[in-house]
Amino acid sequence: MYIGVDLGGTNIAVGLVSEEGKIIAQTSTPTLVGRPYQAIVEDMAVCAKKVMEEAQVTVKDVKSVGIGIPGVADQTEGRVIFCTNLGWADIPLRVEMQKYLPLPVYIDNDATVAGLAESYAGISANCSSSVMFTLGTGVGGGIIIDGKPWSGAHGIGSEVGHMTLVFGGEQCTCGKRGCIERYASATAIIRMAKNAVREVPESAILTMAGGDPNKINAKIVMDAAKAGDPTAVNVFDQYTEYLAAAINTVTTFLDPEMIVLGGGVSRAGEFLLNAVRAKLPNYLLFKALPSPRLELARLGNEAGIIGAALLGRAAN
Amino acid sequence: MYIGVDLGGTNIAVGLVSEEGKIIAQTSTPTLVGRPYQAIVEDMAVCAKKVMEEAQVTVKDVKSVGIGIPGVADQTEGRVIFCTNLGWADIPLRVEMQKYLPLPVYIDNDATVAGLAESYAGISANCSSSVMFTLGTGVGGGIIIDGKPWSGAHGIGSEVGHMTLVFGGEQCTCGKRGCIERYASATAIIRMAKNAVREVPESAILTMAGGDPNKINAKIVMDAAKAGDPTAVNVFDQYTEYLAAAINTVTTFLDPEMIVLGGGVSRAGEFLLNAVRAKLPNYLLFKALPSPRLELARLGNEAGIIGAALLGRAAN
Repeated sequence: MYIGVDLGGTNIAVGLVSEEGKIIAQTSTPTLVGRPYQAIVEDMAVCAKKVMEEAQVTVKDVKSVGIGIPGVADQTEGRVIFCTNLGWADIPLRVEMQKYLPLPVYIDNDATVAGLAESYAGISANCSSSVMFTLGTGVGGGIIIDGKPWSGAHGIGSEVGHMTLVFGGEQCTCGKRGCIERYASATAIIRMAKNAVREVPESAILTMAGGDPNKINAKIVMDAAKAGDPTAVNVFDQYTEYLAAAINTVTTFLDPEMIVLGGGVSRAGEFLLNAVRAKLPNYLLFKALPSPRLELARLGNEAGIIGAALLGRAAN
Repeated sequence: MYIGVDLGGTNIAVGLVSEEGKIIAQTSTPTLVGRPYQAIVEDMAVCAKKVMEEAQVTVKDVKSVGIGIPGVADQTEGRVIFCTNLGWADIPLRVEMQKYLPLPVYIDNDATVAGLAESYAGISANCSSSVMFTLGTGVGGGIIIDGKPWSGAHGIGSEVGHMTLVFGGEQCTCGKRGCIERYASATAIIRMAKNAVREVPESAILTMAGGDPNKINAKIVMDAAKAGDPTAVNVFDQYTEYLAAAINTVTTFLDPEMIVLGGGVSRAGEFLLNAVRAKLPNYLLFKALPSPRLELARLGNEAGIIGAALLGRAAN
């Protein structure tokens, strides 16, 4: 068994996970960003002990602790290089955790961890290589090669959301322009929809948002597109075109066995999947050859705990 | 020792290569595109026997034959899926070669093979991961992960030149728009220079091309930029900006230990390298963290023979 910790800006979710990637017990506690990191790590450990107790196991039954962080880790040293949302920089996370739990501690980026979870216990199980796109407020990426998570030689890789898609395009929060995140995130859908309703205020998007453009979210746009609102259909078409191009760029470079769509936007389900699948062939370099399968993630929010836990399994 | 075959549209170059990636003997013969594939493979075998004779070794001293092709290979089946330039489609290259040489035969894309050569015997030796950009008429890519060439789960990966850099941008020969190849190849430099001299006909670029825009090549533009011609400097600046963005996209995704620039354009040497290196920090997502080293390829034209030969070493 493994302990998995999903450290988010709002909650710390902790679970006890089986060798097969099933959650045996789980709990969570608020992160309360702003506290000293020692207090946050102590809460992780308290949660870990709680799930072990619930499952009636001891530290001896647990092989390792894995922690998924919303930032960049130094896996060798077991440190958090930084987590912008938590205000963390250079935190000795492994050493701090080992004060409570005398176990190997593995740390990796949360999007990478979600990709790992899918590749062991989700849709990409049995794929030796896969890339997961986490389509949320931003766009995260998780790369699995030969069954192991790949974050790069310096830990700065798998940042799918910040690959350039439109050279000189929309300004990104990262300082660059034209990043995939500016075109394939929920934030991008909202931006496109706001622009669209400015031209077509009678769109169902605006009605569904109670007449307030600031209340438009990705789900509203998707729902309006599903219902056939022409403005929403246009936004959806534009969005899926960008997403198909982004997926193709990863295919053209890495050609993994499978590409997995996760995150809030992927809750649009088959509607999104079918639209993107229909566009992918136009982008393929070798149209007659097999190419990566595109699928929806399966594990939802549990991917964070499961993937973090399985970092220990992937490392050995 | 290994036999390496560099199959090009003009010549077939064949060499006997040591375990360390040194060429012991080499020869070449014209490809004469249009002949039946059997005749071309027979010529490869004749060349292979010639280099073995020259080095006074027999088939028993050779571990395997590797063939770098300008196309896509099915490595498991040992077939060429296709080589557009040779007009080859679904060619049983391994079986045909084994009629002459009873040895294991490995086949991979020529850009991948060049990247492999550098990672064993060139600039990226001792890097466990690297990506090579071959900047020529097009842009090729070679990916090395954990010391092994990576062409993808379906053999359609590492096509760096056809990742999207400018969504909706310049029409590419592949059918897509805005591919890296349209902005980072020698062809791109020539296109930009032709546009520039239309505006500024007094540019040294045009003088050096004998007044004929159709005689402009990448070397002329680089030489004019080195000499300080303002129009050439502008083109060079634009080109290196695109190249830096393309390199950054690979860094952001894979974060290899090293990125290597090869191909004809890279003959501009330190002048090119320094300009691109100066631009890379602007594109980095994590400016304070270590990132891939950027270097020039070292093996030049020999990379094709050396890398093909070493396919056998990498496979074992």
